[in-house]
Amino acid sequence: MAHDHEGPLARLRRGHEELVLRQLRTHGPLSRGELGRLTGLSRTTLYDIVAALIDGGAVVAAVPAAAERRRGRPVETLSLHPGAGQAIGIDFARRAVHVAAVNVAHEVIGSASAPHGAGLTWGKRVDLAARLVGGLAGGTLRLGSLSGIGVGVVGPVHDAPTTDASTPDTPAPGTSGAERADSLEGASRPHEDLPVLLRKRFGVPVLLDNNTRLAALAEATWGAAAGVQDVLYLRLSHGVGGGLVVGGALHRGAHGLSGEFGHITAEPGGRRCSCGKDGCLETVASIGAVLDAHPAAGDLAGFLAALPVDPAARRVLDDVGTRVGTVLAAVCNAVGPHVTVLGGELAEAGPALFEPVERALSAHLMPVSRPGIDLRPATLGEVGGALGAIALVLHDSPLLTRYQTPNSVE
Amino acid sequence: MAHDHEGPLARLRRGHEELVLRQLRTHGPLSRGELGRLTGLSRTTLYDIVAALIDGGAVVAAVPAAAERRRGRPVETLSLHPGAGQAIGIDFARRAVHVAAVNVAHEVIGSASAPHGAGLTWGKRVDLAARLVGGLAGGTLRLGSLSGIGVGVVGPVHDAPTTDASTPDTPAPGTSGAERADSLEGASRPHEDLPVLLRKRFGVPVLLDNNTRLAALAEATWGAAAGVQDVLYLRLSHGVGGGLVVGGALHRGAHGLSGEFGHITAEPGGRRCSCGKDGCLETVASIGAVLDAHPAAGDLAGFLAALPVDPAARRVLDDVGTRVGTVLAAVCNAVGPHVTVLGGELAEAGPALFEPVERALSAHLMPVSRPGIDLRPATLGEVGGALGAIALVLHDSPLLTRYQTPNSVE
Repeated sequence: MAHDHEGPLARLRRGHEELVLRQLRTHGPLSRGELGRLTGLSRTTLYDIVAALIDGGAVVAAVPAAAERRRGRPVETLSLHPGAGQAIGIDFARRAVHVAAVNVAHEVIGSASAPHGAGLTWGKRVDLAARLVGGLAGGTLRLGSLSGIGVGVVGPVHDAPTTDASTPDTPAPGTSGAERADSLEGASRPHEDLPVLLRKRFGVPVLLDNNTRLAALAEATWGAAAGVQDVLYLRLSHGVGGGLVVGGALHRGAHGLSGEFGHITAEPGGRRCSCGKDGCLETVASIGAVLDAHPAAGDLAGFLAALPVDPAARRVLDDVGTRVGTVLAAVCNAVGPHVTVLGGELAEAGPALFEPVERALSAHLMPVSRPGIDLRPATLGEVGGALGAIALVLHDSPLLTRYQTPNSVE
Repeated sequence: MAHDHEGPLARLRRGHEELVLRQLRTHGPLSRGELGRLTGLSRTTLYDIVAALIDGGAVVAAVPAAAERRRGRPVETLSLHPGAGQAIGIDFARRAVHVAAVNVAHEVIGSASAPHGAGLTWGKRVDLAARLVGGLAGGTLRLGSLSGIGVGVVGPVHDAPTTDASTPDTPAPGTSGAERADSLEGASRPHEDLPVLLRKRFGVPVLLDNNTRLAALAEATWGAAAGVQDVLYLRLSHGVGGGLVVGGALHRGAHGLSGEFGHITAEPGGRRCSCGKDGCLETVASIGAVLDAHPAAGDLAGFLAALPVDPAARRVLDDVGTRVGTVLAAVCNAVGPHVTVLGGELAEAGPALFEPVERALSAHLMPVSRPGIDLRPATLGEVGGALGAIALVLHDSPLLTRYQTPNSVE
């Protein structure tokens, strides 16, 4: 996490800032005197903290019109910056860009998607994202006052979340946003420079994580498992992946490699997987594996359409569901989630998939755990990654506004 | 957790108390004026918080001898109660009681164990625990000023940790410690009454959890993975179980059923397990399963002694290690621990077990994760559960002293 290495004084200060912001969030506009009584902070400390929050753009001070007419020094009222809390999420999927946005009340106000060719440069993908964001919510989004941008990308993300917000005074030596942007296309790990490119475009801090993990966080925030503390999310798509939400927060694991359910061995000695080992769940439960097992279907739409009338297609999905349920049971025995969410295009097969999954889950879970099985279809569809990216911003950075200078580009 | 449902005011107050206690822990004895400057709290708030901490026994006020001779009102110095932070852990294993204790600096000052027959009543097991605790550390332990007692028990613990400390003013209706103690032996879920029995004996709050999970926490606190944030612990003993430490804290999962690695299917269609399903890891990797596979050894000591000279014994362990490594790889792909710790009596076989485990782990982990494999033997032995129970007290209840009245019995 971004704040792991700060000293005790910085932590103390941050605690006080959080306290002040929480009171303003709970009670609405307050005077300094009221804030002092509510927080228990001394006058010196409070004035200092409030000044820093105003400087950082998180809090605004105003003199109510009525007060201006009274004698003596008018009492300033402090309130949260009206833009604080607005956030957007961008999911750079393999061949599409998805965006979503929330308002200051953290309600989703819109989402949009656009497909693109596999070879599109990062610069053009960022352009595409900016156009999609610009069209969201009929222009009511105030880009200049965003709290932050969350970003989902394909593949493992090390030491997530990436944020340039935690080190506002220490830019990487010898790099400018422009230089980095130029070298981005050729980089072997583009994730490392993408935040710089995005910050240059939007002028706000950027948090980055794996997009499938982010879809897990989205389902646990706004989707099928909204408000559930411990969630296992599995996505069956062109790849097979997932994510764990533990205690309400995204679990990342060592080296950013948590939630790799697609690479648990499902068929010992089975087919070689793209990851380099054999018999991974992905080799039997991806869209490609299903179409390989039933080539007559042509594509996924054809396969799903054939299910009601084609027993062979149902048998294929029965086998897939059994493998998926067996792997899920192993993970459930290990981590004990409250809810398991199944998403991705294959999950649209409905009961033809869910029934064999539940049978296998039941067969391989400890009997004492079976009554607690709660398997649900994902509800957020293809914008789950973008929504999860917003959730990342809201979860991990309640204070991002501190570092934000509206409309500025570093 | 115990404090999930408190209101915002109580949370604010608790935050201030933690702030004051942290300053005293970091800086040693301080005056109220110094505390005010260090915490940023107003005089009113600080005096109120300090008074409550003194009332609760967490903080003591003293007038330094030098100050007494000066004119005017002497300046009181505040410091942590010398007993605050002392804690004991008791592990009620199947046929033994293990105890351990830490001093105010949270250093382990001693541990002790005593075996007993399987039929011993809970009352007698608590007596045995009290005798072992009394003999610890040559009587330097001040029972009257304990912060709390952590307790490990066999089997799943629902909604752990159990604590009667979070509700000091609301005892369960119609029960007294004595009534509960009398009915304890016949209870189907003795865990529910054990805290009452122990609180009656020791007069301090009690936290309770599964003893194998607690051993995981102990290894992540004082043992093989001390200080590591994400730890997977597997114990191969008469049963096979484990625990996950996530972000430095014990992961409990839904219904208290996290860490059940022993009941992940390791041999589809294999032997019936005590849990009721077939082919669990426990059916192939417990001490009993090993002796069934190699009856000539007689007992575990005989088996371990035979390893260097008996190829058949090594083959048995090779197969066990392969199954264990395969299951561990599935869990590692899912949760990505920094360190995996292998404990229990079977782990004493050393390389004859660890080598096949590492081979299988490597074969079934994503290739990108293989360089990060960090498999270590457990170091805390049979007192791991008791030590983990202490860690539970220190992790979950830094403020337990608040509720404690020294030497009192409710």
